[in-house]
Amino acid sequence: MSDTIPQSVALSVRITGIGSYLPPRIVGNHELEDALGLPPGWIVERTGVRERRRCGGETSAFMAAHAARQALDMAGIAAADLSAIIGASSTPQQAIPCTAVFVQRELQAPEGVAACFDVNATCLSFLAAFDVAARLIAGGAHRHVLVFSSESAAHSLNPSEPESAVLFGDAAAAVVISRAGDSGSALHSTRLQTWHSGAELSQISGGGTLHHPNDPDTTAAHNLFAMRGPQLFRKAAPLLLPFMDSLCDSAGWTRDSIAAVVPHQASRHGIELGWKMLGFREEQIVVNLATRGNCIAASMPLALAESVHSGRIVRGDRVVLFGLAAGLSLGGATITF
Amino acid sequence: MSDTIPQSVALSVRITGIGSYLPPRIVGNHELEDALGLPPGWIVERTGVRERRRCGGETSAFMAAHAARQALDMAGIAAADLSAIIGASSTPQQAIPCTAVFVQRELQAPEGVAACFDVNATCLSFLAAFDVAARLIAGGAHRHVLVFSSESAAHSLNPSEPESAVLFGDAAAAVVISRAGDSGSALHSTRLQTWHSGAELSQISGGGTLHHPNDPDTTAAHNLFAMRGPQLFRKAAPLLLPFMDSLCDSAGWTRDSIAAVVPHQASRHGIELGWKMLGFREEQIVVNLATRGNCIAASMPLALAESVHSGRIVRGDRVVLFGLAAGLSLGGATITF
Repeated sequence: MSDTIPQSVALSVRITGIGSYLPPRIVGNHELEDALGLPPGWIVERTGVRERRRCGGETSAFMAAHAARQALDMAGIAAADLSAIIGASSTPQQAIPCTAVFVQRELQAPEGVAACFDVNATCLSFLAAFDVAARLIAGGAHRHVLVFSSESAAHSLNPSEPESAVLFGDAAAAVVISRAGDSGSALHSTRLQTWHSGAELSQISGGGTLHHPNDPDTTAAHNLFAMRGPQLFRKAAPLLLPFMDSLCDSAGWTRDSIAAVVPHQASRHGIELGWKMLGFREEQIVVNLATRGNCIAASMPLALAESVHSGRIVRGDRVVLFGLAAGLSLGGATITF
Repeated sequence: MSDTIPQSVALSVRITGIGSYLPPRIVGNHELEDALGLPPGWIVERTGVRERRRCGGETSAFMAAHAARQALDMAGIAAADLSAIIGASSTPQQAIPCTAVFVQRELQAPEGVAACFDVNATCLSFLAAFDVAARLIAGGAHRHVLVFSSESAAHSLNPSEPESAVLFGDAAAAVVISRAGDSGSALHSTRLQTWHSGAELSQISGGGTLHHPNDPDTTAAHNLFAMRGPQLFRKAAPLLLPFMDSLCDSAGWTRDSIAAVVPHQASRHGIELGWKMLGFREEQIVVNLATRGNCIAASMPLALAESVHSGRIVRGDRVVLFGLAAGLSLGGATITF
């Protein structure tokens, strides 16, 4: 770790509510193997994904609001109690305004109460927004903040890169973050670091000012996800262990004291590394890749939501969020749930 | 103000550096009046804009990095000293990864040090990101954070709405935010509030999952800025005075004690309201609309940068940032510079 990033101070915040939304449409490997001309069994063997959900016309805000209502119910508060609504997805619902505005509307939250804005760190957007929300709460300026991630990747799937085209699933997840009081919950530390030499290893070069949709030079290919998996993996691999060491050290936690590691469900390869290379036991790692796919920024909060609602993660548990994103960025957080 | 938003606690942070970038190409009204078939004098009479800058191929990251280098020089630090780089523009350079990554690269900042992410609240993105940066600094987790806004609107200008098509200018601006120490600088309060019923009054409905660039149903019109100015104005007008009262109250400031109000340069109409309706004297208001146009999220930090470098704003001055954004959102901050 650089000396410029001092030790974190624990923030007295608590995930009081968490929820998720899965589109009802399940897309199995057979369908995709047929469509992409892949041999039977190729997908599960390469990616570990058996099925994934795909939107059938739900908007990003609709999915997010469904997840948010679950989170609000669990927190026992109303949408009117939210003083900030933070979008944390890799791509917005539309260019202007930000997606959080449309979620405020879907929730029928009162007008003029919540601050609505989006935070984007691609697959680590939830982690970055969670840290922002925690600081808003801990600073005393806010009482309850909603953070949501909502992803639908259909139009960005790249048929010429079957390994990524079959990997992604659609989903939304949301959390309500509140003051911890004397509950024992806390956000102990957050780490986010970016290596810009990896920017082109995982990207959509369109969708912005560089290859604007109305620029006649923009092609459909610019708007497709492009990933150089092996290069990305080689670049990230040596960074992972020092990063995890630093993250655990910043909270003063041993690996054994951690109840659950919730990784971004980037790929089977990445997740298997999670326990083999980083010093965890397999049963510490939360994995939903096989049935959910990689749900981009929604992946991490979705895995967290499913773990909480299944009882896999309970109050007082030490939880590590950890992941890799386009950037190339590494991110992690240590939370007492 | 809602009871759910308690009084803010002043954050001990200081803008140690600020800079800007203007594309060299100046576009006068004559050129636009010819191109759009408008009578001579129409633009300045309707909008108050005499000229604006337009990009000639500079990328968003190039412009941002130019502004950032000025800010770093003024702060007397190197890019290596930044522990976070936060993008704060209304639209990104590309969909994935976030623009901050490309600015980290343009600055030749060392890899693996800064956290790179973007914050989006449309025209109030700078304000939202400034608040986030201040909380990162004040919480002790960071020492120097860069926030930049970089805007180029060319492909989104709507020729069928000449009033907005002639209004926008391209620019970038950046600030370095650091610990205030005993300098007397502070961020006293920030307010951001959203009224979702105004979401369609100022929008680009394309550029996201709703009308994806590769969706065959997406039209060029979806990717153009669309503003219903009179409706937006009617909706915002009654909100402005209570908002400004609450903002000044949150800092305990009288109008007279404020050295400068730096408004988002939304339109002449909006800015004239700034002093007439909100209880300020004309000379308190910083205006650069005539020569810069509305530079979207870069507007507010650009006006601040120009005021600092011209000596209009000096150390110790009480400064109010204030603006209106798509959302509809109102935002403000009270700063001792």
